Amino acid sequence: MIDLYYWPTIPGRGEYVRLVLEAGGLAYRDVARLPVEEGGGIEPMAAIIEGRKGGFVPFAPPFIVDGGLLVSQTALCCAHVARRCGLVPTDPAGEAAALSIALTVMDLVSEVHDTHHPIAVSLRYEDQIDEARRRAADFRANRLPKFLSWSDNLIENNEHDSGWLVGRTMTYADLALFQTCRGLDHAFPNAMETAWPEAPKVKALARAIGDLASIAAYLASPRALPFNEDGIFRRYRDLDPA
Amino acid sequence: MIDLYYWPTIPGRGEYVRLVLEAGGLAYRDVARLPVEEGGGIEPMAAIIEGRKGGFVPFAPPFIVDGGLLVSQTALCCAHVARRCGLVPTDPAGEAAALSIALTVMDLVSEVHDTHHPIAVSLRYEDQIDEARRRAADFRANRLPKFLSWSDNLIENNEHDSGWLVGRTMTYADLALFQTCRGLDHAFPNAMETAWPEAPKVKALARAIGDLASIAAYLASPRALPFNEDGIFRRYRDLDPA
Repeated sequence: MIDLYYWPTIPGRGEYVRLVLEAGGLAYRDVARLPVEEGGGIEPMAAIIEGRKGGFVPFAPPFIVDGGLLVSQTALCCAHVARRCGLVPTDPAGEAAALSIALTVMDLVSEVHDTHHPIAVSLRYEDQIDEARRRAADFRANRLPKFLSWSDNLIENNEHDSGWLVGRTMTYADLALFQTCRGLDHAFPNAMETAWPEAPKVKALARAIGDLASIAAYLASPRALPFNEDGIFRRYRDLDPA
Repeated sequence: MIDLYYWPTIPGRGEYVRLVLEAGGLAYRDVARLPVEEGGGIEPMAAIIEGRKGGFVPFAPPFIVDGGLLVSQTALCCAHVARRCGLVPTDPAGEAAALSIALTVMDLVSEVHDTHHPIAVSLRYEDQIDEARRRAADFRANRLPKFLSWSDNLIENNEHDSGWLVGRTMTYADLALFQTCRGLDHAFPNAMETAWPEAPKVKALARAIGDLASIAAYLASPRALPFNEDGIFRRYRDLDPA
């Protein structure tokens, strides 16, 4: 049994870990979303983050506890879970590539966060909206196309021509890209309408993952958290004009 | 022989990898800084980034090539090099903690970058100076103290009481923290003067690493690149007022 610790009200970075758990069919507890009487709620997460449990203290959620092992940093959580259920390349080059890709995806996710919080996470969006407009414009014009083009080329140039980012089968790197595409479609529907025709391989990959029985069932379940305007991927008209 | 690929004129993220190579006494080539006639220069790096060499294409430098294996993302490069020379914890929990810490340090480095480029990497600092002032003020007030306090607590609560972030001996996570402290001292000398008394364990760790013969010799050599105002850690008076 794997315990996942993440903020209970947003998909955020936790959703990346959930998707690997769900795609791999692993048993897990989403601790902060469990009732307090079942050992859930925010308190067990706070106890770890505040160092009251001893052991390594992660900087921020998400993190997972698997037996005696605590793993933090989103991409590392995903990689750990993926190793448990075979959603990893088995050769060293593929393993290194998958983790590099997952980390690059998480870097992009931080850039998405900063489109609505370019000045400070300690301030509200409304207090940095002018800066957000400027940063989001650059994100749409430069960063988003660069990231999608890089991803598309990885799939295009995969020596196994498998339709996945690395190797012959789906890995957690593909799941990370899938969730990011979902988020980008939510947050930047207008920009993505322009971007999608330039990234047909990414589009096909995202569709293939969305069609998986495990993923479709998960996304239709109450376990999946919908995007909302407290999370990382937010739909603000000012940041994605028509 | 390990080949390191990074921009030749700034310490940037490449310096994190160099420090592990140097501390571990490994033979390496700093490819972009070698003469063209020795196979160096920018072109070999461009060939990989542009996909002209085949195989996995990293999103950005630094990356390393070790035999047939290409590793990208700074923290992963450091971890790979560290495994080659014993600068890693050998237990799974320590290994996971070291990589989490190194990735968290690199997240902080991205935040430092964004203090002078809060809007767009495609624009000059001078074109986003008002936003930079605001972001840097939040960084100094909130993010920097939070990061240093987290780091200090890790050392303080290390069960081995070794003075290092994780385990009994120095690892690449410690080297990453060391280089970040050097960068912060360069970019934010005033803020750091206030911050240092709150982080005595980090201070002692940084001093211990600076005193290592391998590191002292490296930093005094032309192989080490000094901080400059094209890199990540830049000293701008507006961003660190007295």
